[in-house]
Order: sequence, then structure tokens, then C-alpha cells
Amino acid sequence: MRRAIADGRLPVGSRLPATRVLAAELRVSRGVITEAYQRLTEDGQLAGRRRGGTVVVAAPVTAMAAATAGATGAVPSVHRAVTPFAAPPGPEIFDELRTAPARIDLSPGVPDLSAFPRASWLRAERAVLAGLASPELGYGDPRGTPALRLAVANWLARNRGIRADPDDVLIVSGTAQALGLIAQVLHRDGIREIAVEDPGSLGAQQHLRHWQQATPPVPVDEYGIRVDALRASGARAVLLTPAHQFPTGVVLDGARRRELMRWAADGGLIIEDDYDAEHRYDRAPAPALRSLLADQVCYAGSVSKLLAPALRVGWVLAPPHYRKALVDAKRFADLGNAALPQLVLARLMESGELERRLRLLRRRHRQRRDAMIAAIRDHLPGATVHGAAAGLHLTITFAPGACRGSDTDLAAAALARGVKVQPLSWHRQLPAAPGLVLGYAARTPGEIAEGVAVLGEALTGG
Amino acid sequence: MRRAIADGRLPVGSRLPATRVLAAELRVSRGVITEAYQRLTEDGQLAGRRRGGTVVVAAPVTAMAAATAGATGAVPSVHRAVTPFAAPPGPEIFDELRTAPARIDLSPGVPDLSAFPRASWLRAERAVLAGLASPELGYGDPRGTPALRLAVANWLARNRGIRADPDDVLIVSGTAQALGLIAQVLHRDGIREIAVEDPGSLGAQQHLRHWQQATPPVPVDEYGIRVDALRASGARAVLLTPAHQFPTGVVLDGARRRELMRWAADGGLIIEDDYDAEHRYDRAPAPALRSLLADQVCYAGSVSKLLAPALRVGWVLAPPHYRKALVDAKRFADLGNAALPQLVLARLMESGELERRLRLLRRRHRQRRDAMIAAIRDHLPGATVHGAAAGLHLTITFAPGACRGSDTDLAAAALARGVKVQPLSWHRQLPAAPGLVLGYAARTPGEIAEGVAVLGEALTGG
Repeated sequence: MRRAIADGRLPVGSRLPATRVLAAELRVSRGVITEAYQRLTEDGQLAGRRRGGTVVVAAPVTAMAAATAGATGAVPSVHRAVTPFAAPPGPEIFDELRTAPARIDLSPGVPDLSAFPRASWLRAERAVLAGLASPELGYGDPRGTPALRLAVANWLARNRGIRADPDDVLIVSGTAQALGLIAQVLHRDGIREIAVEDPGSLGAQQHLRHWQQATPPVPVDEYGIRVDALRASGARAVLLTPAHQFPTGVVLDGARRRELMRWAADGGLIIEDDYDAEHRYDRAPAPALRSLLADQVCYAGSVSKLLAPALRVGWVLAPPHYRKALVDAKRFADLGNAALPQLVLARLMESGELERRLRLLRRRHRQRRDAMIAAIRDHLPGATVHGAAAGLHLTITFAPGACRGSDTDLAAAALARGVKVQPLSWHRQLPAAPGLVLGYAARTPGEIAEGVAVLGEALTGG
Repeated sequence: MRRAIADGRLPVGSRLPATRVLAAELRVSRGVITEAYQRLTEDGQLAGRRRGGTVVVAAPVTAMAAATAGATGAVPSVHRAVTPFAAPPGPEIFDELRTAPARIDLSPGVPDLSAFPRASWLRAERAVLAGLASPELGYGDPRGTPALRLAVANWLARNRGIRADPDDVLIVSGTAQALGLIAQVLHRDGIREIAVEDPGSLGAQQHLRHWQQATPPVPVDEYGIRVDALRASGARAVLLTPAHQFPTGVVLDGARRRELMRWAADGGLIIEDDYDAEHRYDRAPAPALRSLLADQVCYAGSVSKLLAPALRVGWVLAPPHYRKALVDAKRFADLGNAALPQLVLARLMESGELERRLRLLRRRHRQRRDAMIAAIRDHLPGATVHGAAAGLHLTITFAPGACRGSDTDLAAAALARGVKVQPLSWHRQLPAAPGLVLGYAARTPGEIAEGVAVLGEALTGG
């Protein structure tokens, strides 16, 4: 705990779990925890507040100094961590934002991590280790373990309307790696630009650009991407989030889907980032584009929003034309994902555990979304809410005049008050109204209410 | 077991563990195993041999047919699996060799996988899951978890004489990824060729070439790489395996180390693949080159030979000049390794478990090495043995006339007799004597004796 306070994992202002809860989690007696809290309180690092529980009030100065000294000039995460909004976002921006200390983190893109099924994961791992043949610990198929490729094919058939041969499933290290591999393969095929949605994920654009792909923006309206503008751009490939557009939350509308399919049938390649598809609250998600036109759609999905980003597991279904090249790209990236986590995940998928988990998450996320909408109504009455029907975040925009200065200024003001959010302008290449992208899935309703109240203060400069 | 036979993990001819052993491993009663063997024997898939134990005699035809039908034209692992030696090795060669069915696999590069510490791994995983803070399940530092970077820094200090700041350790997905990232970074810095040892690892050369680096060969003699030839080549960077040269097993000699250091001090960059350093039988391994000239050595290590390749975990210490670029390359490769296996590994390293494991492995590997040397004396009297002082494999070469045809023909003849080996010529760019590379670490002394006897038959065409 001392270490967690020192290195900022428990930043100043954060609330500690009740002694009873922490004792149960760590399987030690409550007395041990009480004593630990007591000692840290005597050291001046913790303080008990009557209704607020126990709160971190100070980090040890020596440890902070050491952490700063330890950061070499090469990786300036600590030095620049406090001002991620001071300059246009560079390649390290998400590291800077992640390490910036804040009391309440409303960054988007992360599910409720406290719901990670630790016990089920451990049970599955025990079963995997007991049943493992030694050769499975050697070098394996760069496409992934047969068990996970089969489990993913079955999962996609049950949940996304996709029929895929397990042999055609490529296991990768999350959507980030998927985009990198696809960008490399298209580059070798002479494709030098991949159109992207605008607004659209800054992170995805950074990955494509790193791999030498230009990312011309195509506007998104209330029906999804403007296919006429896509056609006019002349791009041969496009990256889309049709199930739940990031960050607007728009679902690609029926007419647009048909228009897009005609564009693809004329030779366009769709990279479908099936982002947030499983987190739909009002009705079953629309089937994946991949299920309609397998020859022209390269499909990517991951467990980052289903379980945890730290697992770094995702999958790609390539169009037949690029299948071999993508397997080669994965082979020369890292020889394939690690085997044990793949086998554990395969068990969780095949046993129905992951679907149970998702139902639980969906209920919980929905409550948090409702808490955020209520808080926005109370504290940000001038804001328009987008994308509430699905996902792990909301996007809000401000009417002209409602937000003095830029949305990065607003995000900076919020961070100075201890609340971390992303400015919408980060995710735009074309000029438009200022806004914020607000993740709710990983926070409790209480934190959400408090965080949005702080945003209200930051907005009015109060 | 039925599945393992069907998909070739238990190929025809392979021996099953004794019922007593398997029962203990799976923690079921011996009766359950006996009955399973009995049923498969009745099905005609197994046969009991008096002293040979229970052997797989037939795979189900339907499953084989399905497996063949399931292999698309795109990834020809099954179709070409039987003839990995028919053509010069392409990018899929190691997949082809791995999936080629054989009774005894003497491929190099894999430790005794049956010794993988399953119980310790599971115990450590339980502790990690119990102590994990939820944010650690989110997106993390692309350099790796602080816990593993610290554990690796400590490990390198204890075992390899290297002083490294944990902030400078970059966790990667094995040496394969390390080579790819380094090749990318050097390419962006204008370096287009990386000299390699000859003979030297075909796999490493394939990785460098995939990442657009030429790999000019520099001869290796009994003292290690010929630094005069390296200097004459004009290459600005070189990939070396100084602790235990692959595949010859030569340890870089003192005078050559000094000569190499002068080359590096003049501006040359050394990529040190610290391959097999920990598997030295006769004395402590020589300190890593990195410990002598950190500014000009990019160091790479992994747990593939310590624990298991399937873990896909390795580390890189970059020279200061390339540190930031390598972190960027890792970020845009996959956002960093998965967190849970890193945290488990960190515990195994910090608790001393990994060092205990290594001592056990070294004893066991040494016995297997001795068994292989004895078998070579008996069955391949004309062969010269190289590299016996360390490592997980031996290299043998044949005197002129002792090996009719090429060593790929010999490897093909061995495979036709159920024994899998690598021809030395795969690992050569310059012409030289034929030979074989023979892994012993993953096989029992009995299998080694039998395998080498088969090689003797293949050599004489008997």
C-alpha cells in the first residue's frame, strides 16, 4: 500500500476500500488491515473521514522525488504527465494521460475492471495447466492456439452473426496490433492511405500513421459515415466502427450500410473495428459488416472491452486475398500470442462464462450510464449527449458560446481539479463544436456524479 | 487424448506415459487412465507393447481428413508439412517443420518443457490475482509492468553482470519481437543491413530480412565471429550470440571480445542475443557484452529457453540513443505485453524460483547432452561434435565423403524414419561442410539414443 501511494497508483485524494472488504479480498484478518491503515495514518499518509472512509492525503516526498529522478529523458512520462493538454497530442499522449494523477478518471475505453472474473480466470488456468501437453509450451502456430481460434469462431457465430472457419481466425495482441498488421499488409500491397471516420479514434489514427498510412478524414453524421464523401475521397480502404461509432456512438444506418456495401463491392476494403458491439443496451446489436461481405471486410475484435485491455488478446478475420500476408505479418511481429492466456480465455468463452460476464457488465454499465446522463443534466445543462444507446462512454458537445476556450482547455481545467477526461477535439481532424469524451463504465455512480459536478465547475470557471 | 491423436499432437508411433504417471499428473485415479487406454486400444488407436509401453498406432481417418480439408490454400501448413526439406526454407519453414509428424523430435531451441513449473506458476498467478489493483487490468505502460522490469533488472544483475535501471528495461514478446523492433528502429535511422554470424540462426535472419534489413554473413571460427571480416564488411550493426554461438556453440574468446569492443567503440552497434547464456555446464558464463559497453550494445534476452517459448516474454536493453524509438516501436506494435503473465513471471524471478528451476534444468539437460554425445559416438562415428559446453543442442558436421548428398537430404531421410532434425545448411549463407543441429534438452535419454540410432541408419541408407 505504501508503494501504491508512493508511485501514484493510489493518488492523493483516493479513497481506500473498507477494512472488511480489503481483508476479504486479500484473505487476511481484518485486524491486519486495520493496523496497516493505522500505521499509515500515523505516518500522515492516510486520514479517516467520518462518512468518506479512509483517504490518501499525502505521498511520501522521497518516493516522489525518486520516481521523478528515475524517469530518464528518454521516456518523459513523469515530467510531462501533469500537462497532457499543453500541446497537440503526440505518440505518447495516452501514456501521459494515463499516468497523470487524478482523483476520478473518466477516460473512455475501459470496462468495469473491478468486475474482472478473477476466480473464474484462476479456475480455468488451473484446468489448463493440468491438461496441457508439454509441446503446447513450445513454439506454436503463429495464428494462435486451435482451442482459442475455435472458441472465437463460435463466439462470433453466436454473438455477431459471422460464420468463420477456425482456420481463418488470427489471434493477435488486441485491436492495436490488428491495425498495425493490417496497415503493414496493405502498405506492401501498394495502399498508402486508409480513410477514417471524423470524429474518430485518435489512437487508431496514430497507429495507422505509424505504419505509414495516411488517414484522410470522412465526416460522420447521425446515420454514420458519409459514404458519398468516402467515395469522393478516392481512398481504397476505410477503417470503420459501424456497431457503435467512436466517439459519437452512432450506429451505421440501414441505407448507409447498403451504400457502403456497394462501395466495397466496387473494390473498396473495409476494416471493421467491431468496437463496443457487445455493449448495446436497448436491443441486439446490428450484425457485423463482415457477415455481409466477407471478401471485402477485414474484421477485428478484442476482449479489451469484454474483460480487460491488459489481456492484450484480439482477433482478425482477413479477406481471403490478405490471409496469408497477415499470418506472415503476425509471425514476424512476435511468432504468435502467448499460449496460456489463450487457452484460459478459450475455456471462459466455451463454457459460457464470458457471456454471463457480459450480461452482468451490461446491467452495471447501464446504471452507470444513467448516473452520468443524470449528472450531465444537473451540472452541464448546456451540453448535448451523444451515443447513449451502447458502449462504455458518452460524448458531449457544447452549443456555440457554452464553452469558453477550447475543449482541451476545459479538459486541462478538469484535470487541475482532479478529474480526467478526453477532449473531443483530440479525435477530430475536421473543425467542429468542442466537446468531451466521458467514460463511465469503470467508475461507480458516486464517482460519476462527483466527476461530472467538477466538470460543471471547470466549465463555468467556478 | 482422442483429440490429441486426431490432430497429430500424439502422432502415430508416439509412446504414452505410464498409467501411473499420467494419473498422478492429471490427479485422477489410475483406474480412469487405464480405462481410457483400454477404450482407445479397443478402437484400434493404441496398442500395448511389452517393454515399449503403450503406443499410438492409428489416428482416426475422419479427423485427419477434416484437418486436411480445413487447411485453406492460404496457410499450407498441413499440405506441405510432410516435406519441409523439399525446397529452400521459406518464411513458413519453422511452422512446416513443427507440424511435420515425427516419432522423435530433435529440433533445437526448446528446453525440457515437461519440467515447466506448473504448480509454482499457478500459485504465483493466484497471488497476483489476489493482490492486483483494478487499474492494472487496464491499458498499461508499453515498456511493461514495473514489477517485471524491476525483476528483470535484478535478474540481469545477479546472472549476467549487467547493471540496468528498471526504467530502461523494455519487456517484449520474446527475442523474435525484439529483433523486429530493433530492425525497424535501425531502418528508420538509415541502417539497412545488419551483419550476422555464419553459420547463424536462420530464424533470426528471416526476421531481420522481413523488416527490410540485409543480413551479410560474417564467418565464425573456433574463437567466435571474425571481427576482421566484420570490419571489412562495412556493416554498421551486427547481430551476435556471444555467450553460446548458434548453432556452433562457440563462446566468444577474450581477444575477440576486445577486438569487437574496439569495433563498437569506433561506432559499430552490437545486437547481443544473449542466447543460452544461462545453460552453461562447465563454468559460469562469460559476462554479457552489454556489461562492458552499454552505449553500443542493444541487449536481448527471453524466458523461452529458461521456462517455455509459449510464454512469449523477453526483454531488451537499448543503447540510450535508441531507447525512446524502441519504446515507440513497442507501443505501435501492440501497446505492450499482457499484464498477468508479466506479474506472475516477476514473482517467480524475485522469489528465486526461476534460479532453482534453472539449476534443476541444467542437471537434467547435462544428462541428456551426455546421452546424445554417447549415442553419436555409437551411431555416427564419422561426425564431429560442436558446442557441447553449453546450451540445449549439439551441432555435428561430417567429414568430406561421410555424408552422401546434402544435409537436407539426410534430414529428409531421418524424417521419413520418424526423427526430426534441422540441417546445418539452413543456418549457413556461406558454403561449408554438411551437418545437423540436434536438440537434446526436450527429449529423454532413451528417445535421444533411439533418435540418433535412426540418424545413423539414415546416413548409411540402411
